[in-house]
Amino acid sequence: MTEAEAQLIEQAGRKLGPKGVITDPKEIEPWVTDWRGRVHGNSPAMLAPASTEEVVEIVRLAGEHRVPLVPQGGNTGMAAGATPPADGSAILLSMRRMNRIRSVSAESRLAVAEAGVVLATLHDAAHEVGMRFPLTLGARGSCTIGGLASTNAGGTQVLKFGTMRSLVAGVEAVLPDGSIHSGLGGLKKDNRGYNLDQLLIGAEGTLGVITAVALRLVPAIVARAVAWTGVDSPAKALELLRFLEARTSSIEGFELVPQDSLDLVLKHVPGTRPPLAGKHQWHALVEATTADPQADVAAELQRLLGSALEQGIIGDAVLAASEAQAEAFWKLRDTISEAERAEGPTLAHDISVPVPDMPGFILDAAAKVEAAFPGVVASGFGHLGDGNIHFHVRAGTHAAPGWYESEGEAITQLVDDLVTAAGGSISAEHGIGQLKRAEFARLAPPGRIHALRAIKQALDPLGIMNPGKLIP
Amino acid sequence: MTEAEAQLIEQAGRKLGPKGVITDPKEIEPWVTDWRGRVHGNSPAMLAPASTEEVVEIVRLAGEHRVPLVPQGGNTGMAAGATPPADGSAILLSMRRMNRIRSVSAESRLAVAEAGVVLATLHDAAHEVGMRFPLTLGARGSCTIGGLASTNAGGTQVLKFGTMRSLVAGVEAVLPDGSIHSGLGGLKKDNRGYNLDQLLIGAEGTLGVITAVALRLVPAIVARAVAWTGVDSPAKALELLRFLEARTSSIEGFELVPQDSLDLVLKHVPGTRPPLAGKHQWHALVEATTADPQADVAAELQRLLGSALEQGIIGDAVLAASEAQAEAFWKLRDTISEAERAEGPTLAHDISVPVPDMPGFILDAAAKVEAAFPGVVASGFGHLGDGNIHFHVRAGTHAAPGWYESEGEAITQLVDDLVTAAGGSISAEHGIGQLKRAEFARLAPPGRIHALRAIKQALDPLGIMNPGKLIP
Repeated sequence: MTEAEAQLIEQAGRKLGPKGVITDPKEIEPWVTDWRGRVHGNSPAMLAPASTEEVVEIVRLAGEHRVPLVPQGGNTGMAAGATPPADGSAILLSMRRMNRIRSVSAESRLAVAEAGVVLATLHDAAHEVGMRFPLTLGARGSCTIGGLASTNAGGTQVLKFGTMRSLVAGVEAVLPDGSIHSGLGGLKKDNRGYNLDQLLIGAEGTLGVITAVALRLVPAIVARAVAWTGVDSPAKALELLRFLEARTSSIEGFELVPQDSLDLVLKHVPGTRPPLAGKHQWHALVEATTADPQADVAAELQRLLGSALEQGIIGDAVLAASEAQAEAFWKLRDTISEAERAEGPTLAHDISVPVPDMPGFILDAAAKVEAAFPGVVASGFGHLGDGNIHFHVRAGTHAAPGWYESEGEAITQLVDDLVTAAGGSISAEHGIGQLKRAEFARLAPPGRIHALRAIKQALDPLGIMNPGKLIP
Repeated sequence: MTEAEAQLIEQAGRKLGPKGVITDPKEIEPWVTDWRGRVHGNSPAMLAPASTEEVVEIVRLAGEHRVPLVPQGGNTGMAAGATPPADGSAILLSMRRMNRIRSVSAESRLAVAEAGVVLATLHDAAHEVGMRFPLTLGARGSCTIGGLASTNAGGTQVLKFGTMRSLVAGVEAVLPDGSIHSGLGGLKKDNRGYNLDQLLIGAEGTLGVITAVALRLVPAIVARAVAWTGVDSPAKALELLRFLEARTSSIEGFELVPQDSLDLVLKHVPGTRPPLAGKHQWHALVEATTADPQADVAAELQRLLGSALEQGIIGDAVLAASEAQAEAFWKLRDTISEAERAEGPTLAHDISVPVPDMPGFILDAAAKVEAAFPGVVASGFGHLGDGNIHFHVRAGTHAAPGWYESEGEAITQLVDDLVTAAGGSISAEHGIGQLKRAEFARLAPPGRIHALRAIKQALDPLGIMNPGKLIP
């Protein structure tokens, strides 16, 4: 611990009290490694403010002592963006004690949640007033609103409702100079200069600490229908999505699943079974929902899938007959990563290309990767309607120890090169954090890197906000 | 003309050819005054690039010679944001020759339009492929896509589709260092750092020149229904909107009109007549649309208004029986400003407060302004569902010459103080430009002003992009 860190910790302790300053290494330990266990950091203390004013105090002290802060919510990020540096040169700033839902209103269709509110808690609060916060993802039981906003999180309902960027109505944040940016007014229209809310969303804590977020709510779902379909190709899956979207506004989930991913799930995940009798090269999981008590969303989906079958868009389809079966269908999708890990080492790539190009990209990129690295198996699954798939490369038959280290970097570079050549993004929803920083630096246009660095330097000239993350 | 300006103009001429450099004062003259005729500027030349590469050349020359540029589209802005300074110290950069629609696709639901494309032209192009670009406003025949994005324009369909900010899928721009920011990929998900697209939207040309925009399209309307309703108060109007929104997703226009505004329209605008037989203190114009050929949107609106009448939410309602009558209803709304000007001097304020607070704000602010400035008449009309009204103060019975000058500033300051106290915005959709800069400087928190200045300085250190606009 440096002298500056010791002073900061002591002064913070006087302001925040014992609950606000954790220095016991055993209590800090679970929070200095990213949740996938790939990056290990260190920090001499974890500060845990209970209010925006306490965050202001901490940011001022950080500036005064030139000690950087690493903001953290539920520590569920996929790019190690909330993991402190290994040399202990930064202080962890846990936002989990700021966990109050300040307001939730069906009339204004808004909730204001502090940064540390867990997503599932917000879901419940919205539900209690007959509304819904329509973003969800696997980590909903532990990820926090501040982290979701800071990483512009996505998830499985983006197709209809967009990412956090489109669901955030306003942001409250402490900027690196200790001033409070207050965008929580819930104004639907406000043209007073640069939109700092949008700048802070997806900034991964490098421009300030998000302390609270105003979030858009939508009417609660009264019914949903879930179907599993078999299709010949990703192109047919996209054709099905377009077919459905042209005829109904109820589609909110649409996930592509290749046969070999399904096979691995059936092999490794207990209690799973194939939804369709025959074999299909590809599958699409479809979820339709409605907030209208009069609408029969299951009948509508059944009718539309019947037409799609007649027109040769799909090969087969089955509608979940119960909520349990709907959950079982979703489980087949949600356990793909787990099943792949059970089979052997897997390299995951969270990538996007323009939606119309995605079907071609999946097949083309998989063929190129398999040709360049004989023995590996490459495939893409996930949010086809968002142009975002998780492109996974499995070691396949030659899963030698050290495969990750020996071939991993070269495979990822090839995938990222293919994505970049296709006009896509090497980080669709997971962010840059620490893990994708080198690839971002390698592939981003110089003008973009210059602009990002200039903005970072302008708002955080002392470099106290989440150093070593995002900015190449 | 300074020596530096002369050199820039000469060198630009060599790159752009005669069509790209206009120095005839008669040709420049129409473009150096804002369209409301309130701010008069001067410029020794108007540069008119035909391509992004030509914009790059111009921006590089501007940096080299330290001569600022004032980007301009259709020159229809409400805050003089595209009017050059009066001392001729900046060069006008007309984007109107960059008027190509690069692509328009029903499949990807996107159009890519260059900055100089006129809004009405884009509407037509979308219509030709069975789609629609759902933002419109009075100046649609001359305003341009670049200007709409640079000012985050709103209009009458924001209720359902949002402002430009939510309709822009990507921005291409030339940054002040001459690099091209290219966000036109049409990626639905991309988490590679700060969102420059969103930073450029609403930046009023102070951070770079928008050269093209990717825009979201929605299915074309197949039917619309327009109704005029009489209500007791703005609160009842908002209750009607909530009542309708809870029962249908077809509402896309909802405009509040006070009786005295309607009276002025009936008095001054030829060919207008009252839609309802009785008198009502307030009115709401409702527009419902559908893209579904099977939906009967008129019957649905009629049924819902019938229920609202039974429940005492509204006092009366009439559905337009024809497209001509629908247009006549809209004309009553669209000619309010014109009718007010015919009656006498009017101070216009484009303001917003949180939607639930707007009904109370309208009555309260009007009472306070009328009490503080005896003889004036204050009222609000417009986009109630967006929390955005045009709060107009008319000279009323004491319209002495020089009223604007003698009382105007004090009245506007009172209105802006009331808006700020209500947590609102002194510029909901028109931007800051030149006209609201002093009030923005007076009322914005110091931390916000600091952040805006820091970002401006970081991206435009030479100050060549639209000086004297937006930034206090």
